[in-house]
Amino acid sequence: MNQSFDIAVIGATGTVGETIVQILEERNFPVAQLHLLASIESAGHSVPFRGKNVRVREVDEFDFSKAQVAFFAAGPAITRSYAARATAAGCSVIDLSGGLSPEEAPNVIPEINGALIESYGKPFQVGSPSPSGAALALTLAPLLAVLDIQRVSVTACLAVSSQGREGVSELARQTTELLNVRPLEPRFFDRQMAFNLLAQVGTPDAEGHVPLEKRLVAELRELLALPLLKVCAASVQAPVFFGDSFTVSLVTAAPVDLAAVNTALESAAGIELVEAGDYPTAVGDAVGQDVVYVGRVRSGIDDPCELNLWVTSDNVRKGAGLNAVQVAELLIKDYV
Amino acid sequence: MNQSFDIAVIGATGTVGETIVQILEERNFPVAQLHLLASIESAGHSVPFRGKNVRVREVDEFDFSKAQVAFFAAGPAITRSYAARATAAGCSVIDLSGGLSPEEAPNVIPEINGALIESYGKPFQVGSPSPSGAALALTLAPLLAVLDIQRVSVTACLAVSSQGREGVSELARQTTELLNVRPLEPRFFDRQMAFNLLAQVGTPDAEGHVPLEKRLVAELRELLALPLLKVCAASVQAPVFFGDSFTVSLVTAAPVDLAAVNTALESAAGIELVEAGDYPTAVGDAVGQDVVYVGRVRSGIDDPCELNLWVTSDNVRKGAGLNAVQVAELLIKDYV
Repeated sequence: MNQSFDIAVIGATGTVGETIVQILEERNFPVAQLHLLASIESAGHSVPFRGKNVRVREVDEFDFSKAQVAFFAAGPAITRSYAARATAAGCSVIDLSGGLSPEEAPNVIPEINGALIESYGKPFQVGSPSPSGAALALTLAPLLAVLDIQRVSVTACLAVSSQGREGVSELARQTTELLNVRPLEPRFFDRQMAFNLLAQVGTPDAEGHVPLEKRLVAELRELLALPLLKVCAASVQAPVFFGDSFTVSLVTAAPVDLAAVNTALESAAGIELVEAGDYPTAVGDAVGQDVVYVGRVRSGIDDPCELNLWVTSDNVRKGAGLNAVQVAELLIKDYV
Repeated sequence: MNQSFDIAVIGATGTVGETIVQILEERNFPVAQLHLLASIESAGHSVPFRGKNVRVREVDEFDFSKAQVAFFAAGPAITRSYAARATAAGCSVIDLSGGLSPEEAPNVIPEINGALIESYGKPFQVGSPSPSGAALALTLAPLLAVLDIQRVSVTACLAVSSQGREGVSELARQTTELLNVRPLEPRFFDRQMAFNLLAQVGTPDAEGHVPLEKRLVAELRELLALPLLKVCAASVQAPVFFGDSFTVSLVTAAPVDLAAVNTALESAAGIELVEAGDYPTAVGDAVGQDVVYVGRVRSGIDDPCELNLWVTSDNVRKGAGLNAVQVAELLIKDYV
């Protein structure tokens, strides 16, 4: 069978959009025509794909009937503006922005709930979770068989690439200024990012939670199919270019069987368990890799009903581009 | 009254030891004679005090009867070797290393349990908690009046200065190498520290906990006088030179009254509460300051029995040198 598909990527000039294009090529996704789309400001740029430069066009002028699958890798407002137009034209939507509700576009991670897709109608409208949601759901899903999880407490230390290219270049610029003992005027971040940690990623609501924290809580409940799970989430912006790191603490209903936890993590898809005594890091392990790294598996210091983990993941690959392409690989099976 | 005291500082050439000397001078501590002591390798160096350079001598040759108060700011093994010799000679001990048990040297933070000192016998043997323990106990103690805390979950993102001067210079060196696109060979840390997060600070025991995590749990229980408090602690080494940052999540027995929490934090000694919407950072607020900064006071995303906080503190001042000198200020009242 040699069927191939016309694919649209919205937000094609962003970090995640470019990664999607790169992963489509790496995985030999059966692309017939590739439509790269962006806002009017980015239209006219070009992105390499299979040895050619593909020109980026304006999303507002695109005829979605020309594509079978569209990746939405721009902001949530862009998804909300164009997703309905895409599906009305018969084009399936994979949304990476969190712009649609779980009822409109259920989140899918192939390793966890890929089987769900068969029950959806075509054109599909599917969510690909946030990088944090993907990394943590992949880590926790295999534990559901061996633990009765009551509460999850997560601190998500996010790379500046979670803010796109501007985050990356601003950390580099600030670091250089400081090492050259030049006065620092923060531009993209609201204060010094180099050699510092910021207490939140994004703008808090009236209750003090940032969108990313709320999205993570909702995604974990949805992907783990535990709608009442207690999740507390804190996001921290770290002076790291690529790769998110997480401390995770679980409270369980019964004492944790560490051997069973290790076995479950070792055999889980999409996870690499690092042996006891060692631990993974974003820079040394996760970046550029397709799996989520898990280490420091330990119970509570004296609470047997507690499990602590350290998790690190490439925030633009498995956390975003790769998962979305894997979802597309499932979708197109239904087109054959 | 013009009584003054002979003071010894053990570990005088380290980051914390030097900070103690600096704070003794800043706060006009009534020092008669200052004895700076260190291991044989560091003996012969000198440290400035009140406009003069004071020569550092070898601790093993020191006659502790020449001092009324000795600060132990070297490793726990040094404290265990010399503390008994000091008290036998009539010299009070303030231990910053965690080398003595709470029974031998109860931890004191003047703002929390300074009154306890009056009940101890002279020569005193008192602990000054770890930087993390001090920052978090100061934050949580005022909340005990308004919350019934069941569980504390902490992620402690520590500055490289928690590893002394070598940690600081290694982060600077690695960052410079990377920005100059030179190959990186980690020296002091076991892997790349620049633009990366390490999953633990120190060497884990057979259960996977590092000493700092165990010390933090024990100190919080002791200082908050809640010996059965459930505390889960994860330490992370961050590419930050000075200032520790903490995400804290509390589970409470009853719904959290945020107004009461804010009022309790606003009126607490040793704490600076940053207004809602803003947040403090290590570099922008805490470093060089004597107070612990608290921000992002928020309940759970949908659990009313949860309280989340962000805390940042100068790890060599309030976290170490300052608290120890404040303890000494209490001790000497008993000598008058």
